Amino acid sequence: MFSCLCPAYAQGSLWKAIWKHLLLFIFLYYCINVVYRFFMTEEQQGIFLRYILIFDDFTKYIPLTFLLGFYVAMIVRRWWACCQLISWPDHLLFNISALIRGSDPETRIIRRTIARYAILTSVLAWRSISLRVLKRYPTDEHLVSSGLMTREELVIFKNIHVKVDPHQKWFVPVNWIQTMMVRCFEKGTLTHTNELRVLLDALEKFRNGFFQLFIYDWIAIPLVYTQVSTISVYGYFAFALIGRQYPSLNQFQQPVDIYFPVFTVLQFLFYVGWLKVGEDLMFPFGADDEDFEFNYILDRNLEVSFLIVDDLHNQVPPVYVESLKD
Amino acid sequence: MFSCLCPAYAQGSLWKAIWKHLLLFIFLYYCINVVYRFFMTEEQQGIFLRYILIFDDFTKYIPLTFLLGFYVAMIVRRWWACCQLISWPDHLLFNISALIRGSDPETRIIRRTIARYAILTSVLAWRSISLRVLKRYPTDEHLVSSGLMTREELVIFKNIHVKVDPHQKWFVPVNWIQTMMVRCFEKGTLTHTNELRVLLDALEKFRNGFFQLFIYDWIAIPLVYTQVSTISVYGYFAFALIGRQYPSLNQFQQPVDIYFPVFTVLQFLFYVGWLKVGEDLMFPFGADDEDFEFNYILDRNLEVSFLIVDDLHNQVPPVYVESLKD
Amino acid sequence: MFSCLCPAYAQGSLWKAIWKHLLLFIFLYYCINVVYRFFMTEEQQGIFLRYILIFDDFTKYIPLTFLLGFYVAMIVRRWWACCQLISWPDHLLFNISALIRGSDPETRIIRRTIARYAILTSVLAWRSISLRVLKRYPTDEHLVSSGLMTREELVIFKNIHVKVDPHQKWFVPVNWIQTMMVRCFEKGTLTHTNELRVLLDALEKFRNGFFQLFIYDWIAIPLVYTQVSTISVYGYFAFALIGRQYPSLNQFQQPVDIYFPVFTVLQFLFYVGWLKVGEDLMFPFGADDEDFEFNYILDRNLEVSFLIVDDLHNQVPPVYVESLKD
Amino acid sequence: MFSCLCPAYAQGSLWKAIWKHLLLFIFLYYCINVVYRFFMTEEQQGIFLRYILIFDDFTKYIPLTFLLGFYVAMIVRRWWACCQLISWPDHLLFNISALIRGSDPETRIIRRTIARYAILTSVLAWRSISLRVLKRYPTDEHLVSSGLMTREELVIFKNIHVKVDPHQKWFVPVNWIQTMMVRCFEKGTLTHTNELRVLLDALEKFRNGFFQLFIYDWIAIPLVYTQVSTISVYGYFAFALIGRQYPSLNQFQQPVDIYFPVFTVLQFLFYVGWLKVGEDLMFPFGADDEDFEFNYILDRNLEVSFLIVDDLHNQVPPVYVESLKD
Amino acid sequence: MFSCLCPAYAQGSLWKAIWKHLLLFIFLYYCINVVYRFFMTEEQQGIFLRYILIFDDFTKYIPLTFLLGFYVAMIVRRWWACCQLISWPDHLLFNISALIRGSDPETRIIRRTIARYAILTSVLAWRSISLRVLKRYPTDEHLVSSGLMTREELVIFKNIHVKVDPHQKWFVPVNWIQTMMVRCFEKGTLTHTNELRVLLDALEKFRNGFFQLFIYDWIAIPLVYTQVSTISVYGYFAFALIGRQYPSLNQFQQPVDIYFPVFTVLQFLFYVGWLKVGEDLMFPFGADDEDFEFNYILDRNLEVSFLIVDDLHNQVPPVYVESLKD
Repeated sequence: MFSCLCPAYAQGSLWKAIWKHLLLFIFLYYCINVVYRFFMTEEQQGIFLRYILIFDDFTKYIPLTFLLGFYVAMIVRRWWACCQLISWPDHLLFNISALIRGSDPETRIIRRTIARYAILTSVLAWRSISLRVLKRYPTDEHLVSSGLMTREELVIFKNIHVKVDPHQKWFVPVNWIQTMMVRCFEKGTLTHTNELRVLLDALEKFRNGFFQLFIYDWIAIPLVYTQVSTISVYGYFAFALIGRQYPSLNQFQQPVDIYFPVFTVLQFLFYVGWLKVGEDLMFPFGADDEDFEFNYILDRNLEVSFLIVDDLHNQVPPVYVESLKD
Repeated sequence: MFSCLCPAYAQGSLWKAIWKHLLLFIFLYYCINVVYRFFMTEEQQGIFLRYILIFDDFTKYIPLTFLLGFYVAMIVRRWWACCQLISWPDHLLFNISALIRGSDPETRIIRRTIARYAILTSVLAWRSISLRVLKRYPTDEHLVSSGLMTREELVIFKNIHVKVDPHQKWFVPVNWIQTMMVRCFEKGTLTHTNELRVLLDALEKFRNGFFQLFIYDWIAIPLVYTQVSTISVYGYFAFALIGRQYPSLNQFQQPVDIYFPVFTVLQFLFYVGWLKVGEDLMFPFGADDEDFEFNYILDRNLEVSFLIVDDLHNQVPPVYVESLKD
Repeated sequence: MFSCLCPAYAQGSLWKAIWKHLLLFIFLYYCINVVYRFFMTEEQQGIFLRYILIFDDFTKYIPLTFLLGFYVAMIVRRWWACCQLISWPDHLLFNISALIRGSDPETRIIRRTIARYAILTSVLAWRSISLRVLKRYPTDEHLVSSGLMTREELVIFKNIHVKVDPHQKWFVPVNWIQTMMVRCFEKGTLTHTNELRVLLDALEKFRNGFFQLFIYDWIAIPLVYTQVSTISVYGYFAFALIGRQYPSLNQFQQPVDIYFPVFTVLQFLFYVGWLKVGEDLMFPFGADDEDFEFNYILDRNLEVSFLIVDDLHNQVPPVYVESLKD
Repeated sequence: MFSCLCPAYAQGSLWKAIWKHLLLFIFLYYCINVVYRFFMTEEQQGIFLRYILIFDDFTKYIPLTFLLGFYVAMIVRRWWACCQLISWPDHLLFNISALIRGSDPETRIIRRTIARYAILTSVLAWRSISLRVLKRYPTDEHLVSSGLMTREELVIFKNIHVKVDPHQKWFVPVNWIQTMMVRCFEKGTLTHTNELRVLLDALEKFRNGFFQLFIYDWIAIPLVYTQVSTISVYGYFAFALIGRQYPSLNQFQQPVDIYFPVFTVLQFLFYVGWLKVGEDLMFPFGADDEDFEFNYILDRNLEVSFLIVDDLHNQVPPVYVESLKD
Repeated sequence: MFSCLCPAYAQGSLWKAIWKHLLLFIFLYYCINVVYRFFMTEEQQGIFLRYILIFDDFTKYIPLTFLLGFYVAMIVRRWWACCQLISWPDHLLFNISALIRGSDPETRIIRRTIARYAILTSVLAWRSISLRVLKRYPTDEHLVSSGLMTREELVIFKNIHVKVDPHQKWFVPVNWIQTMMVRCFEKGTLTHTNELRVLLDALEKFRNGFFQLFIYDWIAIPLVYTQVSTISVYGYFAFALIGRQYPSLNQFQQPVDIYFPVFTVLQFLFYVGWLKVGEDLMFPFGADDEDFEFNYILDRNLEVSFLIVDDLHNQVPPVYVESLKD
């Protein structure tokens, strides 16, 4: 029981998400409590008690669980779809390695350049979505200094003007890859139009991952839906501020006094915690703990990409016919 | 807490959606309240109080949350599927750029015309779905004056007669693109039947996006489902008009008086707000705030399309073999 | 509020679905009510009142909303999947138009015949699913007289005997289309085996739509599931007949009297209405209001099909090289 | 109302599923009832009454509906996915008919043998899943005597040894079909490697249907999930045995007596009925009423398969150029 | 009823999952119970009784069912998606067998080596996911001694250095398979670029299964979601420790005494059991009962792989033309 909670508290993910709100809630609760206990006449307490009872009753008719259940289920589904849209260059580069063959310097540099452009596309696309990637490559200069782009390429890149949405130039290196493929076909490195097609298909699949991410980023969940959920949760705890005050009456009109609203705090933990799950996952491209680690992906892709197109190209252990026994 | 509510109120999306209904509700509530408080004898009040109690009880047995949960979940799923059906010309035009090669004027104009026809298809298709696009291009004349169609093309277009559903002529430019592809194949610009196939497949994918949108537009969510939801929500608040009148009795038969029905108003905010989420998303092609911004998409597509087929065609930075170090 | 309810009542879709049941319910309700009010001694009324209270209590423990929520959600998902399985000939015929080229009479008649067979397949397949299509083409004679089939074709069609399921001959015209494609390939109209493949794929996609519809028609939702839902709803209102009788007692044992069971009627509207949503959508191929309008689809397909393969074949506005400015 | 229940009772599907459990429940109920009414002193009855009240209260806090809702929704989704995995040979055989052309005896016998092997694969695969198919073809001898396999093929089949899972030899005829396709290609009946590919793809799709069914059969729903549902339902009715005893008290402490626990029986009908929906659909390959009718499918496939590859092969009505009017 | 519970208890899956927690709960319960019954004065008992009542009330407002319903539904969906991502080599190897033809030793050894590499990929990939596979092949030496890898291949494999994620070298044998395919194409064993493409596609599909598994392993369900569920369940039973103490009062203030908290234990069984369903399925790659049996899959694949590429290669029963009767 505790073994599964403690590391969480240590890492602090639920706690970290809601502790500010929880402290505010407890502070307000005890403000009201102090007034009720010490500054009210007995008659005033009697009247206030009636309000406590009716406000407590109200909280029972706010069905937070369902609302949050439906809302968070939708957001988790969307978040998961986002996760699966991340474009990995592996498929594209395996095809490049299989079809643009040769160990001469020119073919090698073509394969390596395509791998570099694939990573460059990732950086350009994710830079306008993820804070982390933006922090790593804040300007185009950083692209050059990190070796992802040559200065010459930067000049060409800057000469392309997009007015409607100026950040949407990430597809330019995709176009360069396509042109390189076409030239390989025209030169005869690709021997059949079919091979060109295979490469174009793999490139399109690679491009589409980034494109879909922009669509997800662009078409948000309707604001009203989020507001409804937020209002319900905060409304619930606004009523609870009054309705859960002690001393109160139980169902047989006997006074009961719990000095700390332990049940309400537990509810706070899970209702506000659940709402936070939703809020965190709604913008999966920030810089928080639960967010995609785009930087790790970039490092991994960088290493694996050059491995596939260069070091592993045409590698295979020898096959010995005599090993065939039976 | 407030930081996430305030901009919403400022932008007014939830508030804007329901304020008229809310005012009407509060007005009716106080009408009844005034009659009950000031124009009834004590005996009448006693009898009325019984009705208050029983009507309040009724509201507790209308499980709005589930009903709305299931209903809105279905509509959001449908809305999201719609969003993903928007046809983007990028894939088609990248293929055009890769396979219909050449910088001679004739090949350039063919590529540019195909791009123009792709945009024209979007306008024709979306015009009969989205109010915004219709407002931008209300007549065929506007298509000519905006340069999407030549006058000659308009004449050909008008000569095609469709009787069963006269607005369904958006696929005509798709047919023109197909004919242009076939002629490129016959002339030898496309060197292999495989390349023609690639283009036909991309065109079909482009066409299918519009076609599916029409199916979504045509097959509505069953009316009974919507009515059931609407009746439940409005029925709930009709009962609440009586059942939430104050002064009332709490569970120990003590009179309580809350002068403003704060809980009922909160419920109004989220139940009617949730219903509005559903209603807004059911017709995602109107001219409201949450709707698809087709005009932005058109501008973006227009710019990117010509970029792909013309400016970026055959562009690639030079590759230097000597940069291969290791 | 009323603007969205009134047209519905006018069109009567919810009302039409349940008014008979509602009248029966109200009739039974007042029969019991009259006996209870006028034909019972006071002592009998007292005993009956106890039953009213306990039956009313029962109704609170039948969670209709969830049951109907899960049940209807499943049915709506199935219905929507059905809607998307409708086969449209557009894709097939655009491919025919692109690959079986030529304006000589023979090629034209081949394209037109393939279009006609595509429509004929729809009619044959849907006739055994949809009452409306069956009403339009009740016998094979009607196919001939409407021009979908020649008498010669009818003779061939009738000579094919299928014993296990005699109505399953709708795929015969699909076979004829396939044979025509193969002959076009053997004659050289299709110049490459690849083109034959494109056509065979499109034909398979077209065929599969009908085939899947039959699977949906054949594998029904488990009967027990439907029975559970139906019994719950009708059981609920059977208990409500007793439990919602007035005069009754409120929670403080005060007698209350509502002469018309307005809340129960509201519940009837939405529970029975919701059940009807499910029942209507479970058989989406009947002749009711919410059903697929197969006849409209047939008319639309007939017109568009011949347009694609004949009138629009090889049509494209001329391209002027001089229009290339920049 | 009754029209939709009666045939169900007649056919007895819900009734049949639960009548034994229901009778047992009613028997136990009246045993306890008789003891309570006739063999207890008044004082004992008073004490027992307290237990009735508290056990009745318990039943109100077991939320069976949701638990069953989520559980059954998952099982129905899985069941439906299973239904759609059934492999139909139509697609494969239409392709065979289109690409392995010729009416000479050898080509005809090749097409017919492929059709026979497709059916043989179905029988071998489904035999280890469905009781019905196993009952029809209990031994390999039955395959020979029904004509699905020749004695020579049986010898070859028996010589293939699979140790890990001995029943998994259903893919052997798929391998034979593949070898026949390859030989057709080597002999020149298939004129292009592309055609071989089309056939291999169709064969793979056919094979995959069976393979996926085995995965569904092999990866069961986690046992704990099923146990949780079962325990909840039976636990509920164990408490109901005490908690729904009459005479009891209503909420105003007045004694009420319903001689037959009509509400509890209704609940039994739908909760146990719903659980049975889940149990039936979890093993969709048994021999019950709701199960797949594999035998019908086999008969249908047998007839349609030979129709496609033999009788309908190369059939098409003649086309008359003069019928082209406009 | 018992027939379906007993084997479960025997196998002990639910029982095994929760018995430790259940014993702890019962122990704590009786500690409190003993204090309450025997060590409190009557007055103290009266005060404690009030807390019992209010804590019992609290438990009624924790809607565990929904929370667990939504949470477990999400996890089961994810688990099922994982199950379907397991890569099976069948499709790849059937294609190898169809396209890399020949019974000469060299071609045979190539086919067998490809099959061996496919299995080797599985072992390398699953070893870093599943404890069971790791236990079977703890070091690279075990790969050599089991015959999956030759010593020469191990040297090559060890020379490949991956820094970012050192365990991610499972794709190396996939690269070797690709190189072997390409060499078969260069040597002419594959006669057309199309055949190379078919094999590359099948290889990509095979690779993608492993790759997706790593994505599932890498992108965990948000920790907050899990914490919310865990806290709710354990919070619920913490309150139940007090709230379900006996003797207590029923709704008419009569004392009732149930010596064993039978209802609470039943609730423990299904709520904690349900939570365990979620926890088990969240890490489907451990070594527990419900986990994937990767070792069985490996054995099956090993046997079937060599069967497909070697023993069954080019096997087909002879076809007799004279068997064509009709």
